[in-house]
Amino acid sequence: MNLLDSISIVMVETSMSGNIGSAARAMKTMGIKNLVLVNPKEVYTDKAQARAAGALDIIENATLVSSLEDATAGCHLVMGASARSRNLPWPLLNPRQSAQVAASAVTQNPEMKIALVFGRERSGLTNEELALCHHHVHIPSNPEYSSLNIAAAVQVLSYEMRMIELGDSVEYDWNEDRENPPADQKQMEGLIQHLEQTLIDIEYLDPNKPMLLMHRLRRLFMRAMPDAIEINILRGILKKIERYSK
Amino acid sequence: MNLLDSISIVMVETSMSGNIGSAARAMKTMGIKNLVLVNPKEVYTDKAQARAAGALDIIENATLVSSLEDATAGCHLVMGASARSRNLPWPLLNPRQSAQVAASAVTQNPEMKIALVFGRERSGLTNEELALCHHHVHIPSNPEYSSLNIAAAVQVLSYEMRMIELGDSVEYDWNEDRENPPADQKQMEGLIQHLEQTLIDIEYLDPNKPMLLMHRLRRLFMRAMPDAIEINILRGILKKIERYSK
Repeated sequence: MNLLDSISIVMVETSMSGNIGSAARAMKTMGIKNLVLVNPKEVYTDKAQARAAGALDIIENATLVSSLEDATAGCHLVMGASARSRNLPWPLLNPRQSAQVAASAVTQNPEMKIALVFGRERSGLTNEELALCHHHVHIPSNPEYSSLNIAAAVQVLSYEMRMIELGDSVEYDWNEDRENPPADQKQMEGLIQHLEQTLIDIEYLDPNKPMLLMHRLRRLFMRAMPDAIEINILRGILKKIERYSK
Repeated sequence: MNLLDSISIVMVETSMSGNIGSAARAMKTMGIKNLVLVNPKEVYTDKAQARAAGALDIIENATLVSSLEDATAGCHLVMGASARSRNLPWPLLNPRQSAQVAASAVTQNPEMKIALVFGRERSGLTNEELALCHHHVHIPSNPEYSSLNIAAAVQVLSYEMRMIELGDSVEYDWNEDRENPPADQKQMEGLIQHLEQTLIDIEYLDPNKPMLLMHRLRRLFMRAMPDAIEINILRGILKKIERYSK
């Protein structure tokens, strides 16, 4: 899949150039390169450059057009960010669903061009502009305060596009993060027995009244699933303790 | 589930107040209210207010503290945004996985307090600060340009938290078998410091050549997420050892 290259971010009549800079940065961090500006009030300001940081090339290579029709003329799938639910209901997706739609479009046809359209800071997209979109995308925001900054909205949609491009495998795999695989059971038992003996030596554990102590400690270390290096460290500590206790 | 109320956004030594404003807006649009500022350079500037827009109450109600330890003292699950992969790997989640972990924690125990920690604009979190986190969260950004604006990162993580709160399925299973909830960070730090002192006393740890020993041990115990009873047991053992070493 080559979803990210198929996408253009289209910003309609943006009035604050700082937002164009922030949006450029947001796009680029997610690997989206194509920016189309429809009648921006201003573009190359100091503020835009400061906010773009290392993503100034996105602005320099942006396409300037004078209408959303022009911006989307070569696109096959147009999705417009919409804050409000309109009188006339339209297919409404959340950002994750929009990424699924986009990904499945590009999978079916790699030549597909996709536009993600963002409206004015204050008033969003007009009804006429929203009508040019195949789908509306709504970020499910707090009903009491629903107004995302436009660059923040670009960030969220771009993030979802990137997540699906990367395969969206979100099954959490504990072992993947580990430096080393967990020790085997024999090593673990060696640790537990060593620990038990040490606790007896320092008179913390009374073998005649063991209670649940070793059970609890075993459970704790099983949960941590130490690797072989960690077990060596722990047993090194135990050896050192033994020297003092004898 | 009441995930969003359980979450605090912790911003460490933010230097640009505009970013605090933008982050406040990002949080509030996603329904997260608690903001903790660790040594911010400045807070109540015109820029912060302008960027916060209707989210100024978030800043007004923010807690100011002087260290990440203080910020996370009452938290049970601490996740730190991390751009870089470190020498010593730590459990690393993407934002979606972090939301699954958080949701599963709160589902198991509604009293759980969660901190999402964001570092300095230029340099992120220090290794010491990252070591205070149970998990690191990495937004899978473009390797060629990976630097998200801090408020954009707050937006993405907050968005994932909101998505799962709104019903995205929880797949990750938070130690279903736990008897007790994990200890809070203050208890954990107490254990780590006690352990370090004991290892110095028994001359296993040379404070002049600490190497990675404490880092490794911290990672091991963070992974185990001991509960308060387990921490008491471990500290009881440490006390007993000290008696022999003196």
